[in-house]
Amino acid sequence: MKKTGLLLLGLAISISVSYSQQATSLMPQPKKVEIGTQMLQIDKNFTILIDGQPSNFIFDRADDFLRRLAGRTGVFIQQDRISPSMNKPVNPKMLIKVEEPGILELGVDESYSLNIDANHIKLYSKTSYGALRGLETLIQLLDSDQKGYYFPEVKIDDSPRFPWRGLLIDPARHWLPVEVIKRNIDGMVAVKMNVLHLHITDDQGFRIESKVFPKLHEMGGEGMYYSQEQIRDIINYASDRGIRVIPEFDIPGHATSWLVGYPELATIPVEYSVEREWGIMDPVLDPTKESTYEFLDAFLTEMAGLFPDEYMHIGGDENNGKHWKQSEHIQKFKNETGIKYNHELQALFNQRLHEILTRNGKKMVGWDEIQHPNIPKTVVIQSWRGQKGLTAAAKAGYSVMLSNGYYIDLIQPASFHYLNDPLPDGSGLTPEQARLVLGGEATMWGEQVTPETIDSRIWPRTAAIAERLWSPGNIRDVESMYERMAIISLQLEELGLTHEKNYEMMLRRLCRGKGVEELRILSDVSESVKRYRRNALSNVNALMPYTRFVDATRPDAPVARNFNQAVENLKDEAKHEDLEFVKDHLDRWFTNHQNLILILDNNPILHEIKPLANKLRTIAYIGIQALEYMESGQSSPEEWQEYALEECEKAKTPHGETELMIVSGIIDLIQNTK
Amino acid sequence: MKKTGLLLLGLAISISVSYSQQATSLMPQPKKVEIGTQMLQIDKNFTILIDGQPSNFIFDRADDFLRRLAGRTGVFIQQDRISPSMNKPVNPKMLIKVEEPGILELGVDESYSLNIDANHIKLYSKTSYGALRGLETLIQLLDSDQKGYYFPEVKIDDSPRFPWRGLLIDPARHWLPVEVIKRNIDGMVAVKMNVLHLHITDDQGFRIESKVFPKLHEMGGEGMYYSQEQIRDIINYASDRGIRVIPEFDIPGHATSWLVGYPELATIPVEYSVEREWGIMDPVLDPTKESTYEFLDAFLTEMAGLFPDEYMHIGGDENNGKHWKQSEHIQKFKNETGIKYNHELQALFNQRLHEILTRNGKKMVGWDEIQHPNIPKTVVIQSWRGQKGLTAAAKAGYSVMLSNGYYIDLIQPASFHYLNDPLPDGSGLTPEQARLVLGGEATMWGEQVTPETIDSRIWPRTAAIAERLWSPGNIRDVESMYERMAIISLQLEELGLTHEKNYEMMLRRLCRGKGVEELRILSDVSESVKRYRRNALSNVNALMPYTRFVDATRPDAPVARNFNQAVENLKDEAKHEDLEFVKDHLDRWFTNHQNLILILDNNPILHEIKPLANKLRTIAYIGIQALEYMESGQSSPEEWQEYALEECEKAKTPHGETELMIVSGIIDLIQNTK
Repeated sequence: MKKTGLLLLGLAISISVSYSQQATSLMPQPKKVEIGTQMLQIDKNFTILIDGQPSNFIFDRADDFLRRLAGRTGVFIQQDRISPSMNKPVNPKMLIKVEEPGILELGVDESYSLNIDANHIKLYSKTSYGALRGLETLIQLLDSDQKGYYFPEVKIDDSPRFPWRGLLIDPARHWLPVEVIKRNIDGMVAVKMNVLHLHITDDQGFRIESKVFPKLHEMGGEGMYYSQEQIRDIINYASDRGIRVIPEFDIPGHATSWLVGYPELATIPVEYSVEREWGIMDPVLDPTKESTYEFLDAFLTEMAGLFPDEYMHIGGDENNGKHWKQSEHIQKFKNETGIKYNHELQALFNQRLHEILTRNGKKMVGWDEIQHPNIPKTVVIQSWRGQKGLTAAAKAGYSVMLSNGYYIDLIQPASFHYLNDPLPDGSGLTPEQARLVLGGEATMWGEQVTPETIDSRIWPRTAAIAERLWSPGNIRDVESMYERMAIISLQLEELGLTHEKNYEMMLRRLCRGKGVEELRILSDVSESVKRYRRNALSNVNALMPYTRFVDATRPDAPVARNFNQAVENLKDEAKHEDLEFVKDHLDRWFTNHQNLILILDNNPILHEIKPLANKLRTIAYIGIQALEYMESGQSSPEEWQEYALEECEKAKTPHGETELMIVSGIIDLIQNTK
Repeated sequence: MKKTGLLLLGLAISISVSYSQQATSLMPQPKKVEIGTQMLQIDKNFTILIDGQPSNFIFDRADDFLRRLAGRTGVFIQQDRISPSMNKPVNPKMLIKVEEPGILELGVDESYSLNIDANHIKLYSKTSYGALRGLETLIQLLDSDQKGYYFPEVKIDDSPRFPWRGLLIDPARHWLPVEVIKRNIDGMVAVKMNVLHLHITDDQGFRIESKVFPKLHEMGGEGMYYSQEQIRDIINYASDRGIRVIPEFDIPGHATSWLVGYPELATIPVEYSVEREWGIMDPVLDPTKESTYEFLDAFLTEMAGLFPDEYMHIGGDENNGKHWKQSEHIQKFKNETGIKYNHELQALFNQRLHEILTRNGKKMVGWDEIQHPNIPKTVVIQSWRGQKGLTAAAKAGYSVMLSNGYYIDLIQPASFHYLNDPLPDGSGLTPEQARLVLGGEATMWGEQVTPETIDSRIWPRTAAIAERLWSPGNIRDVESMYERMAIISLQLEELGLTHEKNYEMMLRRLCRGKGVEELRILSDVSESVKRYRRNALSNVNALMPYTRFVDATRPDAPVARNFNQAVENLKDEAKHEDLEFVKDHLDRWFTNHQNLILILDNNPILHEIKPLANKLRTIAYIGIQALEYMESGQSSPEEWQEYALEECEKAKTPHGETELMIVSGIIDLIQNTK
């Protein structure tokens, strides 16, 4: 009967969670929440009335809300599709009142208030964008008891801490079809983000149709690019959900794909092909020729007509200057104009871009490197190199936003990103300078992700960044964040996001459907190596398969986190449930090994992780021994400690670019036996 | 140690499967396969050369093939993207040779030959379309041993039995975004289907942009329709994969959505709104006014320019004639023209359509009802009403294809569809008449499916229909079909199809992530009620949520099938493994109940299936008792038999439109105790 006992234990935990107040599980946390004890029951007569002067899309979003509510509850809500021409319900359960449509731009009012009592829901906002944010809070509040689904009594007043809460998506490195963008827009909306930054050109691909210079996408995009109609579709989709779309045309470096069709733009005008490798490349635009600016003027003017947002991103990062150094005419130009450093030459280039953008009514955004005394203060600096640079830029009078610390491609834990604050206590900025800190952007660089895996790198971790950028700065409880993130992660699935469901799918493919359980026991405690180590470990490039074990594993492997935490808890007082959890998992890892190895043997794609499986078995056994020493009340022999710690060191070595995430927990167990 | 023992048992089965020859697992089965013992190993130097006169898309499909091969094997194949301008590899491992591009039309040559030895793969075909079919056979042949992945030695000659192998998709009843269509096109390609039939208008929605009559999609589509650019995108995507796209504009009935914007087309020209209910509706076009034909002429001419295929479908089904009967001017027209029956009136209407289509170079397709002496023999009759009608139509000289028996919306088992032959032995057709039987179409009517669930209704069962339509008629082994279908089902996932992965996702949502294992034990033996019973049991319509337990369950619940089969096997000789399987499952259903009920209690959306859970427990216990009687060697008491059979009868009652699929197995067990 042991099995049943374990299931019951699991169940006891689940019941306590499902009874928790959804009102305390909101993510991002609102500025002010008061929770009451009444409930507004949901039945088929639930109706919504929309009042005031909202934008038309509010009707669509309210209808989406109604369908999601029906989808989650199974309640067949009778109200017909909500539209501006609908019959207004009498005695509506819910009233959405919007003062004015609002204009989607930096700093638009996104505040809202939400009041729920036993009989009514009132969602009020100044603009349509505030109402959008409030609808997402409301759907998160959905709760249930044995009688049915309900919204709890609350009074919420909410508005964002920062006006720029972005996600960078990079279809240049790996092509991402429109639906990938759209479902991630839906995810952004769910956590109240408001800027989609499309890194749409880079060495590895030119992903947007240009009618003026068609060889850009035809030759630089290799058939994988967004048509202008698709871009308009994406922009409309995003705008109707309160998300600004900002394109990045990364120049003068990171621009090989431009040169495939137009080599005359290059500093060294030879034949170029679309780049397959990752990294910093030498090809760079020629900043000394008028024809370069004529081209950029025509192109950026075309793009300015396509993207309605006031801001446009020109990249400007990681120009290694090699081709400029190698080029005689660039050297000659520098000598003639008295320019000493490449940075100055690039500033000259950026000044010309700035003129073009200004003429098109656009403000310029660029990475750290664009900062230069000659560059006007109207630009926005996006800091990828660090908090220091951000603070310095704000002190110099630039608007800034933070991406350093939000690089979600580096497979760091959500807690790391969560505690990374664009405007931490003690930043030393004056209130006026602090206002220049606009927010930040999570950056989903595309080298290591494909349409199949990208969602699992973005979600749910980006919810932690979204909370950092929306909620008051003093909301910093990591444990609470992880608990709430687990809830929102499941909710994100209803938007079509694949971060959960592609995990098992990829495991199924790896073992051809036979042995998923065994394989998951390993993958649940494994993660990709961190930061840029994957590039160093393997001969990666744009055409390699991203379908291996490492790609199936996910950041923040929850079983590993829980295990390490349970071990940590044992230090204070050995609670029965922590001990059971630790024991149970050690046993599972140890006994799983025999079957797992057969599965790895049978599937050549998994051969590379056999050492990882072996190491998990070894350190699991060490953990079991450690527990035995702890339970015996005696210290472990020093010899054993030495051996055990040495094995743990070995277990830190990645295999197949994957590493075991429970080594630190095992080391803690060993330390506990001293 | 019992747990480990069970896992090993499972593993023993899996090993035997993974070592089976992929060459005998092809689906659809080729016409002729010879299997040798050599292997062509796959390593990073695998290269493809394309020779002859192929269409350009063959380069893209060969590139897709290479990426899928890399994805499944993890082998980083070094060949760069395959394109017409690529550098030709020296000593290629694989040669694709295509005699001529071919033209995608009914009857295009899809034959191919595939020869693999230890050193080379040769794929030859007359047209590009044959090469496409051969590539899918090849990727299915991928196998592995401990040394790595390989293709087995084979000689295959293959060509289809029928030239029309279609899938009907119905975005009219529930809107389906472009990506749903595209991933299902990929699925069709994988099983060698070649016609996508888009049922693009119906009472519940008009899903295609008309530039001539924009109120059709604007008012009839409620914002959910394909733009003409999207339609061209779908057609190109399909054409480049050897799939013809045939639109269906269902008239004169099933046309309420046309009338929302253009009520003057109606027999009774009142105000219409988009239909929310399912079923046969009264609104119908007016066949007596010239203006109706002027409208249809302009519209169908527009559509004829958009859809390149020679065939166009005009529906013609389920006109109940009520509005014609109610309408004085229709009665007057009938009297004046001497038309007695509505069927004749509709034939008149169809004749006019036929003229319009002919003028546009199109051939007409319609459902059974269009058959009429006045309708020329050049039309194709799609038989939804039965084999009899099909045979009769062929005897009357019409080209025909079968859909009766391929209605995959009715949740019948794959075996049922598999054995349904458009041209069975003893059809009584002359060879000439038999040639008029073009094939068939699986019909995915859209009432009960959404983008979230549609893949699980189409796949994998449609693979069985695809085999029926491609493979020789004597390939009819149901067990073999199910085994091979399980393999192809996993492979279909790599195309983005969600039939597997949305199952657990929907279960997670139903129980908010807590209790998926317990819930799955129930859902694995549950299916939606069959045929049109769901409409009768529930107040269904277009706005109701399709996210309930019944929607998560899938056709052909494999655990139920295996259980019933294992019980069946016990009749002959009680094999140990069958007995273990039966026992194990009965125990699992019985012991799961306690936890399952708590989970159902905690999630109001699951309350409706509590009776189902209770009944599963009851009949599982009856099964356990039956086994005990069987083992004791004594007959069970008649009283007990009576009680047990009565409970089984009760257990047949559906709850939440869902039924238990193991009742027949339990009844068999009871019979075994007599």
